[in-house]
Amino acid sequence: MSRETDDLALRERPESEEDLEDLALGEDYSLNPAYVPMVVDALDRGDAERLRELLGALHPADIADLMGFLSADDREELVPHLDPEILGEVLSELDTEIREEILEHVPSQVLAKALGDMESDDAADVVDDLEADKRAQVLAAMPETERAAIETTLAYEDETAGRLMQREVVAAPQFWTVGHTIDYLRREGDELPELFFDVYVVDPAYKPVGACPVSHLLRAQRETPLAQIMEQITEIPVDMDQEEVAYIFDKYRLISAPVVEPGGRLVGQITVDDIVGVIQEETEEDILALAGVSDAGRDAGILGIIRSRLPWLVINLATEAIAATVVGAFQDEIAKLTALAVLMPIVSSLGGNAGTQTLTVAVRAIASRELNAANSMRVIIREIVVGLFNGAAMGSLLGLATYVFWHDWKLSAVVGVAVLANFFVAAFCGILAPIVLERLGRDPAVSSSVVVTFMTDFFGFLAILGIAALILL
Amino acid sequence: MSRETDDLALRERPESEEDLEDLALGEDYSLNPAYVPMVVDALDRGDAERLRELLGALHPADIADLMGFLSADDREELVPHLDPEILGEVLSELDTEIREEILEHVPSQVLAKALGDMESDDAADVVDDLEADKRAQVLAAMPETERAAIETTLAYEDETAGRLMQREVVAAPQFWTVGHTIDYLRREGDELPELFFDVYVVDPAYKPVGACPVSHLLRAQRETPLAQIMEQITEIPVDMDQEEVAYIFDKYRLISAPVVEPGGRLVGQITVDDIVGVIQEETEEDILALAGVSDAGRDAGILGIIRSRLPWLVINLATEAIAATVVGAFQDEIAKLTALAVLMPIVSSLGGNAGTQTLTVAVRAIASRELNAANSMRVIIREIVVGLFNGAAMGSLLGLATYVFWHDWKLSAVVGVAVLANFFVAAFCGILAPIVLERLGRDPAVSSSVVVTFMTDFFGFLAILGIAALILL
Repeated sequence: MSRETDDLALRERPESEEDLEDLALGEDYSLNPAYVPMVVDALDRGDAERLRELLGALHPADIADLMGFLSADDREELVPHLDPEILGEVLSELDTEIREEILEHVPSQVLAKALGDMESDDAADVVDDLEADKRAQVLAAMPETERAAIETTLAYEDETAGRLMQREVVAAPQFWTVGHTIDYLRREGDELPELFFDVYVVDPAYKPVGACPVSHLLRAQRETPLAQIMEQITEIPVDMDQEEVAYIFDKYRLISAPVVEPGGRLVGQITVDDIVGVIQEETEEDILALAGVSDAGRDAGILGIIRSRLPWLVINLATEAIAATVVGAFQDEIAKLTALAVLMPIVSSLGGNAGTQTLTVAVRAIASRELNAANSMRVIIREIVVGLFNGAAMGSLLGLATYVFWHDWKLSAVVGVAVLANFFVAAFCGILAPIVLERLGRDPAVSSSVVVTFMTDFFGFLAILGIAALILL
Repeated sequence: MSRETDDLALRERPESEEDLEDLALGEDYSLNPAYVPMVVDALDRGDAERLRELLGALHPADIADLMGFLSADDREELVPHLDPEILGEVLSELDTEIREEILEHVPSQVLAKALGDMESDDAADVVDDLEADKRAQVLAAMPETERAAIETTLAYEDETAGRLMQREVVAAPQFWTVGHTIDYLRREGDELPELFFDVYVVDPAYKPVGACPVSHLLRAQRETPLAQIMEQITEIPVDMDQEEVAYIFDKYRLISAPVVEPGGRLVGQITVDDIVGVIQEETEEDILALAGVSDAGRDAGILGIIRSRLPWLVINLATEAIAATVVGAFQDEIAKLTALAVLMPIVSSLGGNAGTQTLTVAVRAIASRELNAANSMRVIIREIVVGLFNGAAMGSLLGLATYVFWHDWKLSAVVGVAVLANFFVAAFCGILAPIVLERLGRDPAVSSSVVVTFMTDFFGFLAILGIAALILL
């Protein structure tokens, strides 16, 4: 599909569903911006028929994207045009901010119906966003079993396996045969989850003892006992942190895993598609934390964004002010030799960069468990060796440049030594700050940057100004 | 499992497999460091029996972790103790550096056998790491069909769907019924992939027209035609970039998707577990690029690490040197008013931080397609408003602090205005640099930091020193 056909399609106002689908998505599978005004136009004209067509051509994930492009008023108008089951899927794709806003306007009855069509983990996420009053109304409007599933899920702590799992599982006793199991699945039909990858084999206490991938069931002879074709399982405790769950899924390349209560009873399952979201969430948190930003969410208003950034800037100002006291202590020296004012920001900035390199690699290595108690001493030594080498290289370069400009070999030497010293500080703090923060149970991504930037600024200034005061002046 | 039992187990030299499994992994499912010396000890004593026990208690992913803790010599000694099928799985979990080193020592015949047990995409990755000579030997030692699968996979470009997919798929003609299909699966048995989630429904030209999740097959009545229960598919072109593939999987929450040749013919499938690796790889690249580090790999030597960092430091030195020429131009002013030397690094550093915040959020929003042509103007305006607000807040704070120290309201005003101006530059460059780099087809994560840091240093110095020169001196 090329841009030309898009434009052509726009001019001709296509009415067939296939044309609309082609028009809806750009070549890169993201929502075509040209589609947005078409929807807004239909909304403005109150053309329900046209809206049904336009929305029908979109996947729920694309409708969620579309919501992001609309004004709050347009969003509110659009919602009644969505079928409850589509609404449910759209809600679970939406960012929290837009979702909360939309939820205020959806009648409790409609919402109860939409939630009933969702998996329990997705439904619980939505209910979690509701105000207390509305939550009570919506839950009251749901059938008993669905309500219980959502309430149980919400009883688990946020970001744990219990919140991530779906309660819908397919389980079979270990003495069943393949034929027995397939007959059961056929008979239950609609009662089963829409999609499942494993039949969990359970003992009489409902503890999982193995899993049969459905492809194994299909392939095996009917008389084969499940116990013979089942595979080993990795049980996930219901209170395990989601980051840990993601690590296990990634490490053992799991497709799904049973979730168990403290007693060992099967209570749900987690599938790898849930894990994709967790991995993105966790790495996103790290990236933003390293840059000194709290997560404000996609559709945060100006105030939300300011709130996510200003605290870090204030902390940065405080540490910079302390580092600047070093400069303040050497004002006489700077007045005598203003070249120092030119060179000192370079020394501190180079150190800051080297420190950021080291700490970023360390934070990621900790997150992926490549850096741990067994190899930390080796990594620390390696980082310091790298720091000293890079420091010697950059010190020589800057020393040379200094000589070219000021023809003062003593000044060159001072600058070179200052860079080398600051690279040592950068390597030392860059690797130790995240390791120590991690041992203290803090998130190394959040505070390492502040520590390392402060140290390289402070010592950078101190190194060049202090050595200069001793040797040159 | 607690630390106490670990220590106990160590003292008692447990021989049962279950005890060893408990001992092998820490509570956080990472390899227990205490396990490493036990393996080394068995290696030193040449105790093959003990090694078999120790390795038998480990998942291939844990054996790969173990390799990371061993010296190159120990690794080389360990490899012959692994069964070919375990070796294959370990190889596909290993980092490239260690893998290349190990591959040199594995006999071609053993390797050919190990590769035969792997999925074609994993096997191709390993073959890709072999030296030309060895590659020819290994391929020659493999059966014709397996060799062809690997060679075809390697013919696709790196980081495309073709390299990511496995060629093993299960396909059925659209006129088949559920019963027909299940009988076929039972009959084929061992010829089918070890694990599959969908049976692709194909037309006579082998073009996929739909997919039947295996759970639907199990649940449906035998006489149901496949065409009736199949679901819509999202086809992945074989030359699509892996980042794009990951986006589509995440957006539509796909479990698996058929990969098609330009003509539309089914050539393979990608499953969501392959995507987890891609997402981690791509965000990892972004994180490191933002910190000015090229990826050196987990087990890179000192030289590899230096090579991954030094170029960025040299670029940083060059841009810093240019920014420092601004300071150089105002040396007389600094000599007259040394407070400027104290304040100017604070102004540039605050701007740098604000710029990093903006660009990091922008780079991530571009990567997740939340920032695109349709909303970029709104985001640019939003960032500039946030920048001006934060600049005003931080400028007031620093202005106040300046007054407290120097009791000079003019100097305070100069500092405050300089901060505000630099925050404008930070917001403007922080949001525009990644957007423009993206439009130019460059990776915004790689070069945005350099641009933004340079601009905020340059303009930070220029703002405070220039305004001071105009007003104060």
